[in-house]
Amino acid sequence: MNGAGSLVSTLVDRGVEVCFANPGTSEMHFLSALENPRMRSVLCLFEGVCTGAADGWYRMRDTPASTLLHLGPGLANGLANIHNAKRASSGMVNIVGEHSASHLRYDPPLTSDIEGLARPLSHWVRRAESAATIGWDTATAVAKARELPGQIATLILPGDTAWMDAGEAILPPAVAPTRKTPDAARIEAIAKVLRSGEPALIILANKATRGRALELAGRIAAGTGCRLGSQFFTARIERGAGRVPIERIPYAVAQGSAFLAPFRHLVTLQTKEPVAFFSYPDKPSLLKPSGTQVHALAEMEEDAEAALEMLADALGLRRTAPRLQERIETPRPTGALNPLSIAHALAAATPENAIVVDESLTTGRETMGYTMGARPHDLINNLGGSIGYGTPVATGAALACPDRRTICMVGDGSAMYTIQSLWTQAREGLPVTTVIFANNQYAILKAEYANMGAGTTPGPQAMAMIDIDRPTIDWVAMAKSMGVPGVQVDTAEGFHDALVRSAQEPGPSLIEVKLY
Amino acid sequence: MNGAGSLVSTLVDRGVEVCFANPGTSEMHFLSALENPRMRSVLCLFEGVCTGAADGWYRMRDTPASTLLHLGPGLANGLANIHNAKRASSGMVNIVGEHSASHLRYDPPLTSDIEGLARPLSHWVRRAESAATIGWDTATAVAKARELPGQIATLILPGDTAWMDAGEAILPPAVAPTRKTPDAARIEAIAKVLRSGEPALIILANKATRGRALELAGRIAAGTGCRLGSQFFTARIERGAGRVPIERIPYAVAQGSAFLAPFRHLVTLQTKEPVAFFSYPDKPSLLKPSGTQVHALAEMEEDAEAALEMLADALGLRRTAPRLQERIETPRPTGALNPLSIAHALAAATPENAIVVDESLTTGRETMGYTMGARPHDLINNLGGSIGYGTPVATGAALACPDRRTICMVGDGSAMYTIQSLWTQAREGLPVTTVIFANNQYAILKAEYANMGAGTTPGPQAMAMIDIDRPTIDWVAMAKSMGVPGVQVDTAEGFHDALVRSAQEPGPSLIEVKLY
Repeated sequence: MNGAGSLVSTLVDRGVEVCFANPGTSEMHFLSALENPRMRSVLCLFEGVCTGAADGWYRMRDTPASTLLHLGPGLANGLANIHNAKRASSGMVNIVGEHSASHLRYDPPLTSDIEGLARPLSHWVRRAESAATIGWDTATAVAKARELPGQIATLILPGDTAWMDAGEAILPPAVAPTRKTPDAARIEAIAKVLRSGEPALIILANKATRGRALELAGRIAAGTGCRLGSQFFTARIERGAGRVPIERIPYAVAQGSAFLAPFRHLVTLQTKEPVAFFSYPDKPSLLKPSGTQVHALAEMEEDAEAALEMLADALGLRRTAPRLQERIETPRPTGALNPLSIAHALAAATPENAIVVDESLTTGRETMGYTMGARPHDLINNLGGSIGYGTPVATGAALACPDRRTICMVGDGSAMYTIQSLWTQAREGLPVTTVIFANNQYAILKAEYANMGAGTTPGPQAMAMIDIDRPTIDWVAMAKSMGVPGVQVDTAEGFHDALVRSAQEPGPSLIEVKLY
Repeated sequence: MNGAGSLVSTLVDRGVEVCFANPGTSEMHFLSALENPRMRSVLCLFEGVCTGAADGWYRMRDTPASTLLHLGPGLANGLANIHNAKRASSGMVNIVGEHSASHLRYDPPLTSDIEGLARPLSHWVRRAESAATIGWDTATAVAKARELPGQIATLILPGDTAWMDAGEAILPPAVAPTRKTPDAARIEAIAKVLRSGEPALIILANKATRGRALELAGRIAAGTGCRLGSQFFTARIERGAGRVPIERIPYAVAQGSAFLAPFRHLVTLQTKEPVAFFSYPDKPSLLKPSGTQVHALAEMEEDAEAALEMLADALGLRRTAPRLQERIETPRPTGALNPLSIAHALAAATPENAIVVDESLTTGRETMGYTMGARPHDLINNLGGSIGYGTPVATGAALACPDRRTICMVGDGSAMYTIQSLWTQAREGLPVTTVIFANNQYAILKAEYANMGAGTTPGPQAMAMIDIDRPTIDWVAMAKSMGVPGVQVDTAEGFHDALVRSAQEPGPSLIEVKLY
């Protein structure tokens, strides 16, 4: 077995089941090694799709996928979605092809400082030095990616390391990732805060917004009267009818601050206190009122479920019934498209157990609050703020959960970044409904222009950098070009019916929601 | 005037006329400053288009364009084409938006190590520390980008630096870029080599493949019997009927080595000796025969034209007539599409003074040799090897030269990387003909699989990472989705006629050349 074979074999031995790949000449031995029947390889036509798909996979499986990227520039193309994954604490293993050391000294065209490019957005970077040790390197990379919270591990694979004989691989022992338990004194201090009756908000994030952790938070809220919140963006929330509801802290600084104004205490799980997304000339960075105290119930690397368990125990609320979101039956809406009718269409048409990937920005910000009573679903958001995350993450999530419908809600500006995702969705027959909210502009920027104090309204040149209406993008033609059936809708009933139909078909489809 | 205003005003004062932008919230003051009537701002829907377009602009104008990118991830999306530009010695000024320092301490979502991301592929990186000094920083960035060879300058613009009052800008003196003249002893040594009659190849690159430098090289070749060559990839070559012809060193290691085998001397201008693009298990990195000497006539930072002038003088060949490429009249081809009929169609249909941007890889490698006798044109190639350079570079070249037809020849795999270019071409009404060579595969990898010794033919999994035929990409629909008229052709005459028609229309168009 050569080094590439040892690498792929170690990946699968350590539980990495999928590789999102965009290979080049230097990765031919890796391609050959992908014949390993335990590895699923998925071709993406741009590296940003590979890394975003790996993020989506982790969000649903809690276990890392791998990517195959072609030298420094291939890695560079994937970095924006690595940034987003890192912010979401999604683990992934990036394999980056590289020239052999003997060739690098001649500075051939594709040479770049791969470590330099990888380090700013990776937790762990290593250059595999020999075929004999690459198994060890790979196992280390996977262990790093599986740590809690998930880590970005980047392994650089020189050509000669891939093609030389690896011999018998020596691997470090496989260790299950562990999460630290918070210390009891901290739990007791927070219990005291919640017992005091002073207004408190528990902010849930990362793995605390699902399953047993979410349920425990609901018991604590029911028993103490505290409220449950999330950041505006969360890695994955189990949401909808029958789940413990979480209030979303608004995005805009004024509204976010107003939301937090009543609280004297913020209790955080696997997140930090709320911060404005951007800096503005006359707005604060921190959203909480001055004097409000922040208490970390579980840090990122700690066990949120155990922390909530301990807190519920300390408060004697383990058996208190949580308040659960009731199902709000929404009739099929009709008439004009607006945030409310869009929300009603979503609430009525989203099938049970759907995965909703939200990158709808302007439209979604006004809409998503109205879908709390939809059938139970998972909601995925972008924590990194780099647009172009939605369609790749939906691709990876659908591969991870082929029996569920993934609905990717994405603004037109964002969708254009990594639209190549549609092709992989068609190739793999993935059950993804891509909903393009086509308002023909980077609408978020129109509001932000005034928020920033750059002027009351943009002038013609500035507006030309915000409007994307000349030419109008034809999303149905775009989908068709990559083998995805598409439809354009301009009414609420049209949107609703298209959503229902899409969920009944097995493969991908696209709905252009015409908002202009 | 605020910092952003000072920045834009300094850019135009120092000769930067265009900004390829994809802005975000943190760049609103910059957008406002773009109202400056001396700056042309061009919206791109992905940052890789911005940086590639800046490269194309530089190739045609020899002066840098600017880009506007949204924080670290926006820069990351542009890095692959920055890599390509850097390898082509194209100067550019990247402006990267950033949070204010006061906000950065809270690590908001879009925070990343921008300097860390910029440094591996920039020659110069600076964080603007205040509105008062940003004029100075900007002038320094432009001076750096204008150096010879062109440099990548990256200026990081924190929000508060953009919006604070700049006062009166203090700028460093404007200095025209200079190129060093090679020393006379070196010229004399090379003259002696050429006088010896031993077989010699002059390898021209960068600015030596055009105008007076190319003509001088032709005189020297005619007078001494030496041959003129170029690397397989060159930033821009003035080529076709009436120009001094240059032989292209083949890409593949065996053919490249065979081409160089007769030569005892390689004389380089603004390039290094030929190196294999990739490392292979049993192929050499260097293409020249052992014992062949390499003589640098002009280093990258030296004046190639002056060096050739001095060499022609030393050889007494200033007035020797160079051999010029004759026009080869090619009849309109008919019948099946193959490398020869494609070449004939190109040779017959390429209009005078066209700009040909070549990213056609597999198809072009067999084709371009046959177009030497076409009407005079400029040929642009990718020196960095990261695919997705073609359509953005064509966009920038066409903006730089709106009175010429730009023909972008691109493989389907490469085109998918940065296909968003088509939208900017439609928006700006650019005279670009995009020719997609649709063979439904990363065809280059099929050959490289065996070259690499990964096996004689790829297995089914490996092949699934090379074929892009499921689904077939519909390029006409793709073009339509972004407002570009398109046509599919599957005969030589169809291709020829579509090319001719496209050059008669004012705006962009796309031709899908169906090779499967």
